[in-house]
Amino acid sequence: MRSIYIAVTFFCIGIMASAQTSSSDDSLNIRKIYDMSLLNGKSYEWLDHLSNDIGSRLSGSYGAEQAVKYTKAELEKLGLDKVWLQPVMVPKWTRGEREFAYVQTGPGETRNINITALGGSIATPAGGIKAGVLEVEGIEQLKEYGRENIEGKIVFFNRPMQADLIQTFEAYGGCVDQRYSGAREAANYGAVGVIVRSMNLRLDDFPHTGSMSYGDLPEDKRIPAAAVSTNDAEYLSSILKIQNDLELYYKMNCEQHEDVESYNVIGEITGSEYPGEIMVVGGHLDSWDLGDGSHDDGAGVVQSLEVLRLIKEIGYQPKRTIRVVLFINEENGLRGGNKYAEVARSNSENHVFALESDAGGFTPRGFGITATDAQFKKILSWKNLFKPYLIHYFEKGGGGADINPLKGGDMVLAGLRPDSQRYFDYHHAANDTFDKVNKRELELGAATMTSLMYLVDKYGLDNISKTNTELAD
Amino acid sequence: MRSIYIAVTFFCIGIMASAQTSSSDDSLNIRKIYDMSLLNGKSYEWLDHLSNDIGSRLSGSYGAEQAVKYTKAELEKLGLDKVWLQPVMVPKWTRGEREFAYVQTGPGETRNINITALGGSIATPAGGIKAGVLEVEGIEQLKEYGRENIEGKIVFFNRPMQADLIQTFEAYGGCVDQRYSGAREAANYGAVGVIVRSMNLRLDDFPHTGSMSYGDLPEDKRIPAAAVSTNDAEYLSSILKIQNDLELYYKMNCEQHEDVESYNVIGEITGSEYPGEIMVVGGHLDSWDLGDGSHDDGAGVVQSLEVLRLIKEIGYQPKRTIRVVLFINEENGLRGGNKYAEVARSNSENHVFALESDAGGFTPRGFGITATDAQFKKILSWKNLFKPYLIHYFEKGGGGADINPLKGGDMVLAGLRPDSQRYFDYHHAANDTFDKVNKRELELGAATMTSLMYLVDKYGLDNISKTNTELAD
Repeated sequence: MRSIYIAVTFFCIGIMASAQTSSSDDSLNIRKIYDMSLLNGKSYEWLDHLSNDIGSRLSGSYGAEQAVKYTKAELEKLGLDKVWLQPVMVPKWTRGEREFAYVQTGPGETRNINITALGGSIATPAGGIKAGVLEVEGIEQLKEYGRENIEGKIVFFNRPMQADLIQTFEAYGGCVDQRYSGAREAANYGAVGVIVRSMNLRLDDFPHTGSMSYGDLPEDKRIPAAAVSTNDAEYLSSILKIQNDLELYYKMNCEQHEDVESYNVIGEITGSEYPGEIMVVGGHLDSWDLGDGSHDDGAGVVQSLEVLRLIKEIGYQPKRTIRVVLFINEENGLRGGNKYAEVARSNSENHVFALESDAGGFTPRGFGITATDAQFKKILSWKNLFKPYLIHYFEKGGGGADINPLKGGDMVLAGLRPDSQRYFDYHHAANDTFDKVNKRELELGAATMTSLMYLVDKYGLDNISKTNTELAD
Repeated sequence: MRSIYIAVTFFCIGIMASAQTSSSDDSLNIRKIYDMSLLNGKSYEWLDHLSNDIGSRLSGSYGAEQAVKYTKAELEKLGLDKVWLQPVMVPKWTRGEREFAYVQTGPGETRNINITALGGSIATPAGGIKAGVLEVEGIEQLKEYGRENIEGKIVFFNRPMQADLIQTFEAYGGCVDQRYSGAREAANYGAVGVIVRSMNLRLDDFPHTGSMSYGDLPEDKRIPAAAVSTNDAEYLSSILKIQNDLELYYKMNCEQHEDVESYNVIGEITGSEYPGEIMVVGGHLDSWDLGDGSHDDGAGVVQSLEVLRLIKEIGYQPKRTIRVVLFINEENGLRGGNKYAEVARSNSENHVFALESDAGGFTPRGFGITATDAQFKKILSWKNLFKPYLIHYFEKGGGGADINPLKGGDMVLAGLRPDSQRYFDYHHAANDTFDKVNKRELELGAATMTSLMYLVDKYGLDNISKTNTELAD
């Protein structure tokens, strides 16, 4: 596109939009928030450090420890009213030496296969496992095949993400049971191992890890579970059609250790009028160990830090307490989210609102919101304030894994909804790295979150009004 | 994000959305369009060929010639009613040997600078140019400095794109005069050359080319014009502050040749009821010569081809004539767009609607629309049909450089509006390459365009109704 014509048209639209939004304090404050995020934002610089200087941050790792220290130190620089660490015992799982897999395509002929251990899996025996492969389209097919076809085999779960679903998280929801429960289910039919097609809508060579669980399966029944790249899943599927007795070898060296102590990192601006009403904004500090966790969830972490920084920068004094919580261990235990909610309850804290960013640092489209009809309607009444920033999506339903344990009463949960098309290209894989995050997209997300926190604080939601009335009584 | 919880929530929303959209034929047809684009689309495969097998396609180049042949052949495979080439004389400008530039930072000390000739620029003399540098913030500053400060100098236009504008095309509109007219203006004050900060919101090492014009400047007054990468623009600006007499050397080998014959590539499905009412969908076939033009405008080309393919695939027989036009020479002359409109007029063709995709292959957000209030209202009445696909943006104003010459009467012009945050990271630069296009984002754009074409054909717009009434009389 060369076109000066079009550029000029856009320019005029821009002027009109600015004119419209200058009609109230809220418009001006939100404009300030976006300007500061885009012109003098800190989120990208923070992410650079978190991703490139610290790197991956799996619970219990040195990276996670460094991330706790770094974000606490950065929070302390923001001049908040309070910064603290909340101790949490977290699981410690290590990958060990890199996984290795191949298929025997003929006598003396092998082809390597890109796999990665699923988080929580046991290792293979030291010499690896070699066995025939049974491809299935999902857990429900295990019953059809039955023990006679499964025993002694490696089960290959190959149901792909559905490309025709517009929200990629839906497609994820339609597959992730294979990863989470596939090993447990297949073990019950006598399988010796499972490999699972990566939850990735693209064809490439990156295997995507993620959490799995053996449920109540006794230790001696557990079998090793790995993810296989989408390209290799396609390859395996096609070769199995012509070579039914194909054998797959794989070796994994992962290990589950004793729980170790880690921390949620917390900072707050204490509310000037209703300090007992707490609004949380957060993301999770831990990441998988393969990439550097820039989208999942480095982005959410730095955006959450930025919310508090921007609120102070625009000179807004919140009436309610605004707390940033960087949760530990979302990926393989959710211990941070559970601990935070447990402490909040035991301290009888009154949480009125929580917002999480854990869907990548892509262009923000809006929010998913869990609220009563009245509360949702109130949030919808602010929709026009977001229009100049191309934030259009306000839909019921949503929150975030870390804030969900806070749910109860009429508190409102919200999740930032960025564009989801590219999220699963990187999710839990070695290519979830800093270079995949666009600075502007990240900053727009931070500003969008800040604007919602500002409006919720200023106008309250029904829960808040009710609580206030009760307090006034 | 691990959370099965959230995935399930999204899944439920998805089911509700599907239920809503299954209430009418239009919803079903639009669902079919998206499904086919995402599950069995051709756009990505076409773009792969256009970008990776053909590559850059500057007007008059071998690549442009190949692109004409390839897209015509592909159109012929679609079983359209008519496919043809429309001859257009286009300018031919060649870059020649790669540009070279450095600054003299001390005796015997130089540092290379990343530059690229602007399209249409003359070459430097064979030995290059070496001169002092005057940094300005825009054309308007030339008057302030006056001939006494400019004569004999290289003028360095360094006004950056404004990062606080949400629509990046606005930021482009605020800078592009430096690139387009900077050389002409500076030459009038006696400058010997110009370099212009690349129209890029990111700091990196890629210089971004683009068209420039000398206007009516006599040939002997013309001065060579280049773009400089944003990183080097920052560097130059900082070193000029401490080394005011800094000299820049640059050498460019570009050349303007005689016009050559090229073609607009056109195909149509003839309307079953109103064959004389023509609806155009298109993008431009030419690209700059640095990358492979995947976003600008390979994406628009393949999406436009896909519109006609999808309309046939869903078994819809358009009432009106739907024509795909792949315009040549948008980048440096607009000869294709002008020729198409000229021929349409001389044949008294009745164009009722035109849609262009020329803003990159990113996630589609909606449309910019030039229409009367009544027409716009009619289009807005379809907004809910697009909601399941997260298409929310329907704003007045817009079209496309190639279709703008068709404007007149009450015909409606529309431009696809993809997410614009990353567009100028790649625009007119060597990194506008195939790997920067996400398959799903491209396919969603094609489906979004097809859906609008389908609705306009089925329900018409005010112009169409009027014409029909006239015809009926």
